[in-house]
Amino acid sequence: MKNPHSTPDLRGLLAKNDTKKVREICSSSHPGAVAEMLRTLSPDEVWSVLTLLKPRLRSEIFGNLDESLEVELAKSLKRHDLAEVITYMSADERVDLLKRLPEDTQETLLPALAQAEREDIRRLASYPEGTAGSVMTSDYCTLSPDDIAAEAIEKLRREAPDKETIYYSYVIDANRRLIGFVSLRELILASPQTRVEQIMHRDIIFATVDEDQEEAARKIDKYDLIALPVVNGNNVLVGIITHDDAIDIIRQEQTEDMEMLMAIGGTHETGVYLRTPVWVHFKNRLGWLVVLALLGLVSGYIVQNFENLILQFAVLASFMPMLADTGGNTGSQSATLVIRALALREITNRDVLRVVWKELRVAIPLAIVLAGLAYGRALFFSGSSSMPSGFSLETIGLAVSLALGIQVVTATLMGAVLPLAAARMKFDPAVVASPALTTIVDITGLLIYFTTARYVLGI
Amino acid sequence: MKNPHSTPDLRGLLAKNDTKKVREICSSSHPGAVAEMLRTLSPDEVWSVLTLLKPRLRSEIFGNLDESLEVELAKSLKRHDLAEVITYMSADERVDLLKRLPEDTQETLLPALAQAEREDIRRLASYPEGTAGSVMTSDYCTLSPDDIAAEAIEKLRREAPDKETIYYSYVIDANRRLIGFVSLRELILASPQTRVEQIMHRDIIFATVDEDQEEAARKIDKYDLIALPVVNGNNVLVGIITHDDAIDIIRQEQTEDMEMLMAIGGTHETGVYLRTPVWVHFKNRLGWLVVLALLGLVSGYIVQNFENLILQFAVLASFMPMLADTGGNTGSQSATLVIRALALREITNRDVLRVVWKELRVAIPLAIVLAGLAYGRALFFSGSSSMPSGFSLETIGLAVSLALGIQVVTATLMGAVLPLAAARMKFDPAVVASPALTTIVDITGLLIYFTTARYVLGI
Repeated sequence: MKNPHSTPDLRGLLAKNDTKKVREICSSSHPGAVAEMLRTLSPDEVWSVLTLLKPRLRSEIFGNLDESLEVELAKSLKRHDLAEVITYMSADERVDLLKRLPEDTQETLLPALAQAEREDIRRLASYPEGTAGSVMTSDYCTLSPDDIAAEAIEKLRREAPDKETIYYSYVIDANRRLIGFVSLRELILASPQTRVEQIMHRDIIFATVDEDQEEAARKIDKYDLIALPVVNGNNVLVGIITHDDAIDIIRQEQTEDMEMLMAIGGTHETGVYLRTPVWVHFKNRLGWLVVLALLGLVSGYIVQNFENLILQFAVLASFMPMLADTGGNTGSQSATLVIRALALREITNRDVLRVVWKELRVAIPLAIVLAGLAYGRALFFSGSSSMPSGFSLETIGLAVSLALGIQVVTATLMGAVLPLAAARMKFDPAVVASPALTTIVDITGLLIYFTTARYVLGI
Repeated sequence: MKNPHSTPDLRGLLAKNDTKKVREICSSSHPGAVAEMLRTLSPDEVWSVLTLLKPRLRSEIFGNLDESLEVELAKSLKRHDLAEVITYMSADERVDLLKRLPEDTQETLLPALAQAEREDIRRLASYPEGTAGSVMTSDYCTLSPDDIAAEAIEKLRREAPDKETIYYSYVIDANRRLIGFVSLRELILASPQTRVEQIMHRDIIFATVDEDQEEAARKIDKYDLIALPVVNGNNVLVGIITHDDAIDIIRQEQTEDMEMLMAIGGTHETGVYLRTPVWVHFKNRLGWLVVLALLGLVSGYIVQNFENLILQFAVLASFMPMLADTGGNTGSQSATLVIRALALREITNRDVLRVVWKELRVAIPLAIVLAGLAYGRALFFSGSSSMPSGFSLETIGLAVSLALGIQVVTATLMGAVLPLAAARMKFDPAVVASPALTTIVDITGLLIYFTTARYVLGI
């Protein structure tokens, strides 16, 4: 027993032409582990290894290769070889691969495939990205309600090599409409003569083809499913989404959420930071930066308007960074919690009052502690700053800490309410997260600051 | 066929004492769906529904209840009832539940359980939080290498009701050491007389008890497993982690990453925003806020040092917010990408040079665009600001845009390098994310700004 960490020297074995050993390693290890061993080899070497294997195993390992290696290799293969690899790949993986190949490779490849495969690919590729239809596979097992358990198991046994899973079977009527679901565990437990109809579940958890893929993944998560059936508008079974695809969807959506939270645009696969070209990074990041910089000009405009106040009390300028940062930080904290609670469906965009009430009770003690800190700072470390005579450090401290307290409370509440408002307007709530919020609370913060200062200082 | 959305009126049925219908609904729906229907009922009502069901189904639904309802109900049950519920719960779920009950409830409960259960609970509860051991379950199937396929299937059939999954079986030797793995699919495909030894995989993907739970979940994700075996230091099989637990781990770690990214401390379960008490929220958020506010004072100190410059060129103060925000935003963007790439193991903390090279090429065009923007702003919207005669708006614009350009490049690089440095020092890289970074680049940004301004203005 060993973890697939000690990589065997495939390159060495290839050089020694020890094909028996290579074949043995590749068939005894998990296809994902083999794909990882192949990582360090050149596309030519990878293909030399793969040609030693049986078509099904070859395709399985091929489907586990890094995306970029997979595409590179596919482009370099002869049409006939690629067609064979694709024929034996799982239905969802080959569609993903084809979508990534250049148009002309696709064009020349499709005629080389059998008609059934071609139609399956066309059908699966027809669903828009992000829907349940776009991530499902067509390699699932179906049973008839009249099958008896023993027949059903025999059928699954026959079909096993071609199917993504035989642990869940879907029961369909003569029109392929989904009418039930039964697990292999239940089939094995039932007496051999029991009809599928008698043991199948009629209350099925399913997704529709045009449903959000994230919604489908959530069902797999919530109900601990190995696979989720996907039906079209007529309740006809058209595919399944498996538990491993659900994890991929969850990871991908998570990366997108996190990037949106940090004002990075665009959607993409996960784990491709280094492979993404510089100009795509540039493009994804520039948009928001410009919008936020323009918003930042509003802050500048406010400062400009209070220039005389700053010229009189230069000490006020030295509190600007702390005020802005603290507002941004408290706002981002509450925004993150609200966005996450929305994403996990713990709250909906109608829960404004409950959220505001919660945040208000958190914000007030936070405001008190932070205002106290600012007061201390003003009292003990502002001695050298210039200000008109007749004003004490205590007054400055009062102005600064009062403004900071108000800023903390408003920023926290804005952080909580803005994502809910965005969700209500059908935007992704994360769009108003950290950077956008920081810039917005800068503007409100400066207004609060200078207005409070004027009021407290009585000018 | 229907999705479990149209909730049947369980309360109404209870009032009418229609126990037959209640029983029917509960046994035909997914336990998770039943748990959801029970959400709106009081703990007493929930228990009235559950008592109508068979012990196994009752425990299964119980384990699917919301955490808070589960605990509340458990505390209100008679010792004997609770012991029965716990006996039939899955091994990992009952440990989770027990950990959440008050000490005295645990004390009185344990003696009411059978010895085997008690020992199993003690053993599972003994692994520290966050390890593979703490999330594994002991309800798995084992086979002997000498079993023939037909016997093995019969054995799985007998054990099915008590096991979390029968689709993966683990082959152990006389000392319970893990020596192989076989799937039900393979057992069914094999001829009935084949010995398990002949078809089992010897190259097993596994986790060790003290391995990070996230690492274990990653293996399930990467190799598309339904379950992952967990062994102790002597290679003795002690538990399995199932695919649905992997999703829960991934979601929980993602929430924690995101919160850390926004400077919120503490670890907790996901989806408990509203249920977490106000003071816990306060405590989790305060720490970082205070640290960051203290860091913000450093920014204030820098501004104070350049007070004379501001008094001469008040216009410079109006660019402070834009400079700080843009630095924070560009830094946060690159930090997010790097932290995510680290989390997905796309890069390691040794890839500093590759990351810096990538970020530098993104940062320079970003700096040029944003500096251009700042120059325009200075030229066209600063007319009303006061400055000494003899200085043109073009000079101010040059100073501001040059400073902004340098700030964008340094902030981007700091955003990329600091998470890597944190990872290198065995901290969670997310610790230097958005809020911390924003505050740090504020400090460097102000230094860059005033130094550049002095230099360009020649004073």
